[in-house]
Order: sequence, then C-alpha cells, then structure tokens
Amino acid sequence: MSEHALDSNGRLRHLITLEGLGRQHIEDLLDRACELRLAFADGACGPQLLRGRTIVNLFFEASTRTRSSFELAARRLGATVLNFEMSSSSTSKGETLEDTLATLEAMQADAFVVRHRENGTPERLARHAKRAAVLNAGDGNHAHPTQGLLDALTIRDRHPDFSRLKVTLCGDIRHSRVARSDLHVLGALGTGEIRLCGPAALMPPVDEFPGCRVFEDFDDALSGSDVLIMLRLQRERMAEALVSDEAEYFRRFGLTSERLRHAAPEALVMHPGPMNRGIEIAADVADGPQSVILEQVSNGIPVRMAALASLLGA
Amino acid sequence: MSEHALDSNGRLRHLITLEGLGRQHIEDLLDRACELRLAFADGACGPQLLRGRTIVNLFFEASTRTRSSFELAARRLGATVLNFEMSSSSTSKGETLEDTLATLEAMQADAFVVRHRENGTPERLARHAKRAAVLNAGDGNHAHPTQGLLDALTIRDRHPDFSRLKVTLCGDIRHSRVARSDLHVLGALGTGEIRLCGPAALMPPVDEFPGCRVFEDFDDALSGSDVLIMLRLQRERMAEALVSDEAEYFRRFGLTSERLRHAAPEALVMHPGPMNRGIEIAADVADGPQSVILEQVSNGIPVRMAALASLLGA
Amino acid sequence: MSEHALDSNGRLRHLITLEGLGRQHIEDLLDRACELRLAFADGACGPQLLRGRTIVNLFFEASTRTRSSFELAARRLGATVLNFEMSSSSTSKGETLEDTLATLEAMQADAFVVRHRENGTPERLARHAKRAAVLNAGDGNHAHPTQGLLDALTIRDRHPDFSRLKVTLCGDIRHSRVARSDLHVLGALGTGEIRLCGPAALMPPVDEFPGCRVFEDFDDALSGSDVLIMLRLQRERMAEALVSDEAEYFRRFGLTSERLRHAAPEALVMHPGPMNRGIEIAADVADGPQSVILEQVSNGIPVRMAALASLLGA
Repeated sequence: MSEHALDSNGRLRHLITLEGLGRQHIEDLLDRACELRLAFADGACGPQLLRGRTIVNLFFEASTRTRSSFELAARRLGATVLNFEMSSSSTSKGETLEDTLATLEAMQADAFVVRHRENGTPERLARHAKRAAVLNAGDGNHAHPTQGLLDALTIRDRHPDFSRLKVTLCGDIRHSRVARSDLHVLGALGTGEIRLCGPAALMPPVDEFPGCRVFEDFDDALSGSDVLIMLRLQRERMAEALVSDEAEYFRRFGLTSERLRHAAPEALVMHPGPMNRGIEIAADVADGPQSVILEQVSNGIPVRMAALASLLGA
Repeated sequence: MSEHALDSNGRLRHLITLEGLGRQHIEDLLDRACELRLAFADGACGPQLLRGRTIVNLFFEASTRTRSSFELAARRLGATVLNFEMSSSSTSKGETLEDTLATLEAMQADAFVVRHRENGTPERLARHAKRAAVLNAGDGNHAHPTQGLLDALTIRDRHPDFSRLKVTLCGDIRHSRVARSDLHVLGALGTGEIRLCGPAALMPPVDEFPGCRVFEDFDDALSGSDVLIMLRLQRERMAEALVSDEAEYFRRFGLTSERLRHAAPEALVMHPGPMNRGIEIAADVADGPQSVILEQVSNGIPVRMAALASLLGA
Repeated sequence: MSEHALDSNGRLRHLITLEGLGRQHIEDLLDRACELRLAFADGACGPQLLRGRTIVNLFFEASTRTRSSFELAARRLGATVLNFEMSSSSTSKGETLEDTLATLEAMQADAFVVRHRENGTPERLARHAKRAAVLNAGDGNHAHPTQGLLDALTIRDRHPDFSRLKVTLCGDIRHSRVARSDLHVLGALGTGEIRLCGPAALMPPVDEFPGCRVFEDFDDALSGSDVLIMLRLQRERMAEALVSDEAEYFRRFGLTSERLRHAAPEALVMHPGPMNRGIEIAADVADGPQSVILEQVSNGIPVRMAALASLLGA
C-alpha cells in the first residue's frame, strides 16, 4: 500500500492499490457501497453527498465503461465532473503532469480519477497532491482497485463467507491489473483458495501471486470452483505471438457451457469487460443464468460512489 | 413502424421512425412539445421531469446541432447526460455494440439517443434494450423522427390545418432521412399535397414516396406552395458526380428571392441545417422574413423534451 | 474597445478586450470577483446566479486551463455548459461560424466563450449575436481579457494602490495576448510604471505599448520591480529561429532565484501558464514563496464568474 494512502488518523486519503489495505477498510467500503446502492435503487435520487465538490477524470488511456462509471457515480452524488482525455491536449504544451494537477487543484478540484498505461502514475500524482484525493482507475498492469472492490461486492452478495470459496482467475494474468487487485481483495477477505490458469506465457512471476494454486489445465482449475473470473485477452498480446491464435486460445481457455459443468453447481461467471465473445468466453455463457457480468457493471457505480464519498470525507 | 415501438398498453416505448405511427401519437407529442416550450420560455426553469434519469448520446456520426439539441433538452429537464462520440473508442476494443448498450443499461441508463450512418442500427439496439428507450437521432437515409416532428410543429404553429397545405421538398431526396421522416409526419397529419423536386439522380424510387407529386422543374413545384423544405446537398454526392457542379445546382434548384415569388404569399422557408448558403438557398432568403429556419432549431428542444419525457413515462 | 461592448445603458454586453474599458467597469468586475470568491470559498455552494442559463464554450484552439476555468465558473453558478472543440466538427460540414452561432442562440444559448487563433473572431461573433453575450477567451495575439483581470486581481490583493507599482513583463511580448490585456488593465488601474523586457525579435512595435519602458537587459528591468509577469515562450517561436535555443533563452531571460534578488523585496512572481520550467522560469522560483502563480489560477474562477454574471445581467 502506498505510504500516502492513509492520513494521520488512519483514514483513507487516496485509493491507489488494494495491496496492504486492511480488511476493515475494505469491508467499510463494501458496506457503504451497499447503502448507496439501496439509496439510488430504481433511479431514485439518493443523498447529494458531493454537492459543491469537483471531480476530475484524467484518462490517458481510452475507456468507456470505467470513465462512465466514475462519472455517473460522481454526478449522481451531485458533484461537478470534468473529463480530460489526455492523449493529446495538455501535455502537448509541454506542461508537466504535476503542474496540470496543481493547476486543477488551484481551481478547487477535490479528487482526481486517473488512468494511465504506466505503472505508478496515480501514486506519483498522489504524492504531489496537496489537498485532493487521487483514485487509481487502472495503471499499467499494477492495480485497478475499484474493479477489485466491485468484484468482491458481486461475490459477497451471493457468498458472504469468503473462507469457503474457491475462486479461479483465468487468462492473461501476467498483464492484468484486474487480476492483481482481485488477488489483493480476495486475500484480504480471507478467500479459501485462489486458483490461476492460463497459457504459460501469460502467467505471472511466481512470487507475485503468493499462496495461489497454479493450473495448466483449465478443466482441472474449474473443478469445484465457486467463482470464475475470466480475464480479457488483449489483442496486442496476440501480435506479440504470446498466443498463437484466437481459436486455439478459445479451445484451451475459453469458458463454454460444457466446460462450466466442471465447476461447482451455480458457480458465478465473471468478466471485467469489455468481453471478446468467442475468445475468453462463449456467448451463451456470457448471457447465461450463471453470469453476473452485468451485476459487476451495476455494482461499479455504488462502489465508486463509496470510494469517492469516503475519500472526500462526505 | 417498428414492432418494438409500442408497449403492451399502446404507449410509445422507442422512437425509431415516424412511419406507421398514428396521428394521435404524433399530435400528443406535438401538444406536449408546446406545453414544454411554454414552460421553458425565456430561459425559465421548467419542470425537472427527468431528474435522476440518465440519457446516453451514442453518436457514430459527427453532429453539432442534433447532439446539442438532445443534450440541452435532457439537461434542462434535469437529466444526467453522457456523450459518446463512438467513431473510435469503445468499438475499437472489439466489444459489440449490443454489449456496450447492455453495459450502459446496467449503469441505469434510461434512454439512448443514437445516430449512425447505417440504416437500422437504432432499431437493432431497441430490439436489444431490456428497459431503456432508444431514440433515433438519424440513421443512414432511413429516418430522423425528431426532425420530422420539429418540422411539423414549426408548420403547425402557422397552419394548424394541414389538409389545405401544399408542401414542397426540394433537393437530394433520395439520400435524405429528413425527407422520409417529413413525408411520414406530413402524411399522418393529412397534408393536402406533398411535392418532390430535385435532380433526377437524387430522386427516390417511385414507390418510396407514394402519393407525392414529382416535379422536374423547381418553378413548377414552387407554384402555389405554402411550405418549402430545402434539403442539404451532401458534398459527397458531388464527388459521386450525381450533381455536376454547385453553381449549376444553385441555378436549377437553389431558392432565391426571385424564385420565392412563385410560391404562395408568405410561404414558409425551411431547412434542416447545416445550410450550404449559395447552393441550396440564397443567403438573403435564409435570413429573410419568410425563413423559419431558426424557429425549426428552437422547436427542436421542446420536441426532444417531449419525446424523452413521453418515452420515459415522465 | 469594441463599439458593441456596451449596451445603450453603458452596461457591459460583451467582453472582447480590456482596451478602452473604463476603470470603473474594471473595478466593478474585480469587486464582484472578490464577493464571489468569498461566497464560494472552501467548496461552499455560492449563489446559483446562472441557474437556467446556457453557456457555450467554442474553443478553436486546445486549452485545458482556460476552458476548465470558464466551465467551472459557469457550472458552479448553476449554468448548463456545452463544450465544443471546433477544430473538426461543425465547420467540416461547410456551415459558417455565424450560422453555428445563430443555431446555438436559437437553442437559447446565453453566452459564448470563444478562443480562436485568429485576431478578431470573438469581435466578429459579437457583432453577429442577437441576444447572447460573447466572451473572448483568447484570440491570436490580440487579447485575453479575463487573464488580464485575474492578473490584476492577484496583484490588487497584495497592492491595492497600483500607482506605486513597477510591473515588469518579460518574454515573448510581441506574440502575447496576455501581455496586451495586462497592459490595458494595468494602464486603466493607473500603474506607476510598466516595463517590458525580452529578446529584440520578440519585442512589439513601439507604438503598441505606449508609455512602457523597454529594457534589453533583464537584470536592469528587474531592478526595483514589485511584480514580475513571466510570459510563456511558444515553442513554435523557436522553430521560427527567433530564439536560438532554450538554454540561451533561460540564461538571458529566465527567472532564477539569484536574479530575483534584483527585484524589490517580496516582489510577486507571476506566470499565466502553462509554464515551461527551466526556460522562462526556474522550478524553485515557480514553487517558491514569492510565486503567486497558483493564486492566479484560483482567481481565474471568480473573475470568470463575475464576467459571466455581469454580462448576463445576473
């Protein structure tokens, strides 16, 4: 965990990674997300906790779902939201990212939601922020903490006791910030067993996922699993020839309805999206009765509301 | 009309096309637009009918005016609006459009406003939507229903009885979704006579505009016309050599003040914008006393308010 | 001053330039900015003066800070804001800028905030506007009036009496709209002495900055100065070979902590941003105790609130 993540009272000040974050902090965030989910159910106008606050989305990588989710979370809580797609604009004028942050803080920005292809950028900005909170919306293959939290919430809704659960992560674990944040949150919540499966070239260094069981064969990994988290295959990895072709990948690691029968009855099927149908997951499984993929999306909003409200002391 | 456009109580559920939509539905929308126009006159804060609702603009074609009009309609009614220019972002990650829609619905999007270059995309999304309403903001040369409605409202303000009217559509009718939606709304409202005029290469197949009178000569078409709807000439059509050159087009089909004298006294001059001054229409006619082009723009807002509020049951 | 800037009651109708604007108008704007700064201090929700109003940002040049500042000013006052990055969209369809303005006015836009690389575009649009106010957010090297006002406010906070002040502008004065607007506001407020310094190729024609003292040597200019306004060096100017290289520029005109000792004790260090650290200004000076650069940014919001509210009669 970042040394800057907690303030002197032990309150969460930034949300950069879930690594090292205590179980109580995580449970508090999930409990708050549940409250807010209820308060905003069926399009109800819930509490305007962030009225008068300004949230800045700094996205250096394109994103539809994560940016929308953060934006809706903030706006439904009454905040003003500014969006920056930073691929081009500000940095083209030679200004440092730190100066951009300081400038927006001087305009009374209260929080920055940052996505960047390089590991560590959100942490770096958090170190520089004087007053504003920084929320990591995904950096490189490092962390995507709100995705970890929403995955945990989706699982907890069905299985409050994590100690009995076998959870399998399948796919490109090496390059996945989602896998890392899932690992940290599942660990903190005392998950019984965490399994990893995927092509050898896409498996992480052994010491990065301590305590996990690694499977070469997907059917073995599935056997008895209560939760299956299918990871997105980045097309770029194909190009790097780490995976020979999509059909072969699907044959070995794609989740089909037949294969799903190896898992525990009513095992949850999860995917952080966007999905490559027919590569990581068969369409009928994605849309089937065990899929909670759209619940994950729905839970993203109250989880991000909870994170924003908690960080801003609201 | 789409089979999905009405719900089991005969209430409008999506707005994909005006074709086949009953006169009562159209009159109801226009009446509601009038109420809302009054409620928001002179910058007044009217009823916040869409407070707590989320409207998503999915624009796969660039548009300033239609997107702004929908956005202002929704926001003045209190809705939260998300804008997506979809040329690049989401689909570049290989996600299907249906999955993008399902994802945004899972975030409690209540309506999608869709513009796409291909006929049928809004209909396809409407078929896929679980709960949200889909509004067509223009698809290919198929339909642009809110444009048809705002044109009808602009005419009805001056001429409540459509049965006495001669309305002339002039220009690239073949490729015009505006012409098709105008045809459908004018037909439903019992317009006395609908006239079509334009270069032969830009006239539609005869069976697509049943009951219309076709004129080769613009002056003949103008004679006695009460309403003139000048259509935008797409520059792309030039490139396709369907029209030899702009000066020649203006000479034959451009609306000049001289030519306007052939029409009925006080005939209304309309154009859906953006205008090519000096090609479809002379600048002094566009800005002249018979022009209601800016009234069309103004009416776009309450018409879209009415459509959004009606579809969302607000 | 534009002949269109004042209405028949002498009230400000557009804000195009500060040139020729009377001292009373300027003092009124600065006083109002102070009130609004107080009302919105510490994230408080101040008066919703622009509720129900629509502000359109028309930016033909990329800008992070100025657009954000105007947007936050407008939204914190309760306005609806539409953003257009006009590099591509509207004008690509062949519509004139005047028609775009008329269209958005017909949608009840109340004000246009315009940035354009060509001198005179905001003035031209103001001439065309029927009802809406036009605010210049920077045009060519002509004017950037809200920057001038926020610079004046930042100075006035420390030095209410301008008649005793020596203010030095340093850098690319020839191409700087900021320098011109600063000159006009400093002149109107009766500044004791205005000094200009920079490479010969970047100095303005002598008659454009009447009454200013021109210095070749930066140390001479600094001597006894109470306020130092360091201007941004446009990289494009480098390319034009007006400045040989960045290191040489910094050596001659860069503000270092050593050099700062030549100025009056506690002299204010200002920069309109974005900064090129190590070119116009050393990092330790930019971040040092005499720097009020972030105060300038903060003051931008209430200054723009004051301008919008005053122009819209709110």
